Amino acid sequence: MADDNVVFVGSKEVMSYVLAVTTQFNEGSDEVVLKARGVAIGRAVDAAEIVRNRFLTDVDILDITTKTEELEDEEGGTSNVSAMSITLGKKSS
Amino acid sequence: MADDNVVFVGSKEVMSYVLAVTTQFNEGSDEVVLKARGVAIGRAVDAAEIVRNRFLTDVDILDITTKTEELEDEEGGTSNVSAMSITLGKKSS
Repeated sequence: MADDNVVFVGSKEVMSYVLAVTTQFNEGSDEVVLKARGVAIGRAVDAAEIVRNRFLTDVDILDITTKTEELEDEEGGTSNVSAMSITLGKKSS
Repeated sequence: MADDNVVFVGSKEVMSYVLAVTTQFNEGSDEVVLKARGVAIGRAVDAAEIVRNRFLTDVDILDITTKTEELEDEEGGTSNVSAMSITLGKKSS
């Protein structure tokens, strides 16, 4: 899957990400991946739920994975942050 | 699976939930489910990642599901909130 099917979820309004995902599906993508880290994870879940419940009812969540990423802070130390990928795709039925 | 294998994640420190999950596995549970809503979803992911990476390396995330729940507010209206269930279990290998 090409990188342009990935929507990175940050601190914008959740509807920005809903729009980004919906646009990618409407332009012909079969799958779109929402990626988020830390506090943005909840927003990514909200976006996925809104897309599949309200905008694209033929789209469902195909897979959700999590991992831990190590971030370097300003003093050169590291801290861990959780990251999530939510794969949305057309229902197979 | 019995309800006592469910850990509800709220606003406490993430390590409270890590401890709750670890305790359930150490008492013999094969699977433990973390459940969270709204802003607590990120904390549930953190707890799952910490359990599998640092405390119980024979445990992995078996399944993650999301849904939308309707909450009634004080004025009788409703608002939607995302909910997540993370199923942790012993690795099959």
